[in-house]
Amino acid sequence: MYNEWQEKDREVVVLSIITIVGAGVMGSAIGFPARENGNEVRLVGTPLDREIIDHAKKTGEHLTLKRKLPEGYRYYQIEQLADALLDADLLVSGVSSFGVDWFEKEILTVIPESLPVLCVTKGMQDTKEGELIPYPRLYAQHLPGRKLSINAVGGPCTSYELADHDQTEVCFCGDDMETLRKIKAMFEGPYYHISLSTDVVGVECAVAMKNAYALAVTLAVGLSEKLDGKLHYNSQAALFGQSVREMRRLLKLCGGQDDNIIYGAGDLYVTVFGGRTRKIGTLLGQGLSFEQAMEELQGVTLESIVIATRTANAVKTLIAMGKVKKEEFPLLLHVDAVINEGAPVDIPWDVFETEFVL
Amino acid sequence: MYNEWQEKDREVVVLSIITIVGAGVMGSAIGFPARENGNEVRLVGTPLDREIIDHAKKTGEHLTLKRKLPEGYRYYQIEQLADALLDADLLVSGVSSFGVDWFEKEILTVIPESLPVLCVTKGMQDTKEGELIPYPRLYAQHLPGRKLSINAVGGPCTSYELADHDQTEVCFCGDDMETLRKIKAMFEGPYYHISLSTDVVGVECAVAMKNAYALAVTLAVGLSEKLDGKLHYNSQAALFGQSVREMRRLLKLCGGQDDNIIYGAGDLYVTVFGGRTRKIGTLLGQGLSFEQAMEELQGVTLESIVIATRTANAVKTLIAMGKVKKEEFPLLLHVDAVINEGAPVDIPWDVFETEFVL
Repeated sequence: MYNEWQEKDREVVVLSIITIVGAGVMGSAIGFPARENGNEVRLVGTPLDREIIDHAKKTGEHLTLKRKLPEGYRYYQIEQLADALLDADLLVSGVSSFGVDWFEKEILTVIPESLPVLCVTKGMQDTKEGELIPYPRLYAQHLPGRKLSINAVGGPCTSYELADHDQTEVCFCGDDMETLRKIKAMFEGPYYHISLSTDVVGVECAVAMKNAYALAVTLAVGLSEKLDGKLHYNSQAALFGQSVREMRRLLKLCGGQDDNIIYGAGDLYVTVFGGRTRKIGTLLGQGLSFEQAMEELQGVTLESIVIATRTANAVKTLIAMGKVKKEEFPLLLHVDAVINEGAPVDIPWDVFETEFVL
Repeated sequence: MYNEWQEKDREVVVLSIITIVGAGVMGSAIGFPARENGNEVRLVGTPLDREIIDHAKKTGEHLTLKRKLPEGYRYYQIEQLADALLDADLLVSGVSSFGVDWFEKEILTVIPESLPVLCVTKGMQDTKEGELIPYPRLYAQHLPGRKLSINAVGGPCTSYELADHDQTEVCFCGDDMETLRKIKAMFEGPYYHISLSTDVVGVECAVAMKNAYALAVTLAVGLSEKLDGKLHYNSQAALFGQSVREMRRLLKLCGGQDDNIIYGAGDLYVTVFGGRTRKIGTLLGQGLSFEQAMEELQGVTLESIVIATRTANAVKTLIAMGKVKKEEFPLLLHVDAVINEGAPVDIPWDVFETEFVL
């Protein structure tokens, strides 16, 4: 373990060893600011990342991020996990939400309890009781015998822009502020700015839900493209406002602090502008059925579909229990009907209307 | 006064006479759904709108909105105001924030107290005590002897898209819910959806502030264009999130309900994508001084500049009084420094970082 203090740019920096498991675009990109701070970064591929690791070893470049990785990154296949974990100060989970079961069984069961974990995976699981549980809490529930420090990253950040050193603001959340400060010190830098919060449920729910609502907002993109091929903003803004309204309600239902809506809104903003969630929302808005849209996307299962479905399931459970009203979540329930019941896109604009008396 | 009930599309509609004073793009566009509901719409130009009214009379088209106005719109020059007000059921103020003094002196002093008013003008005035007062409240303060019903429109709506019948969601606010419902009945339609609120201060503050923060968010557009000519979203999303954070704080300071942030966020979203506020934010972000940027915009005074300055003035007053801390509004104060003190754009990213302990 490096624990020497080093002079660097007149600041005292503690060098740490950071092991990232999951060499997808975000797992690989989050190491950039950490490596540039002088830390040792070890990138470990999952069984699905073999090619990425081989390619990076040979060329120093990331196959799907399509960027040169920082000098000094060390690369490991999953069989070398034990070597990669040797003397590590932090384990980063870089898996997507489709890798969380694997990560829990193969990684979280073998690491020492003294090794803190930072998860980039955004997502939640619904329960039969209508709860929505974010991954850090799920891991803890599934591994009751283990005392792990499981922290997570929330906030608006695309991996490509992080790798390009764009100004980025995120929030690290976890149960212990001292641990969060130590992790922050490894990553913070001139372009990567980090708030800290012990409201794990609030931060994680806010940033997970935005995937569902980004799909909702981009329905308006498709609707207007179908109309005249141009972008129209009144309708997008209306769905954006309604999304913020429903996300705030969901945050309260989950037990998170309302203030976290800033991460949800910021993250919603960035998600609306990029990637496959915008693509599927746009296709659905243009009038394609869910099956046709998924065909266009070549059957890739999207996190936005998963999270929309899970969130809607929780809400439907709570409606059945009489704990919430369906009028409180018209946009979410419409998205759910479109993706899971074959309903055509037909935004329930009138249901969004409210009357508020002081 | 029409007060006959008419059968129209199997719904019973009360026809009303709506007089709009101010024939700019928004004043002219808000009459579209009202006219299409069968109401009589009378468009009265201010002394600055002579050409618009002349042109519309001759051609049926709006000179700056560049759209055909609805069949049956009636046009009046300001000298014909008395005729235009005859038997009117609603007066709409279509003036911009630069016309509010004129509107107050020339119009609000002469109308009957029984005539309700609906203002499309977004804006606030700061006071020496650090308050921010929206226009409906200012009018009431300035005309203490008059018992007027002054209502206002908030929410994300560009005039061009409203005139194009795009799906649009707004909020009408005023002191009396019954009056609001009557006004809503004149305007609501298949593409114009209206929530109602008696929280005038909350709705109006939320939608006024977004002009200041739209300028702030678009600084990131200019910063990234300067870098490589491309749009980057992490930095925009960071400024969007920070804007939502500061706007929620301002809402509380103004005494408005926090829930109105949905109008602020939606309105911020639409303003970031269009018009001159994006233009000036982008130019400033690219590195132009405020004077150079204003020169590019040919000296047009922007509402975003006015509202940013007024809001910052109120906040600076409250800081001097020890009622708020400057760390609570770093983005607003930076925008103020750029536009009013010649400071270069240098986003205080680190100051945005927070620590939150449950």
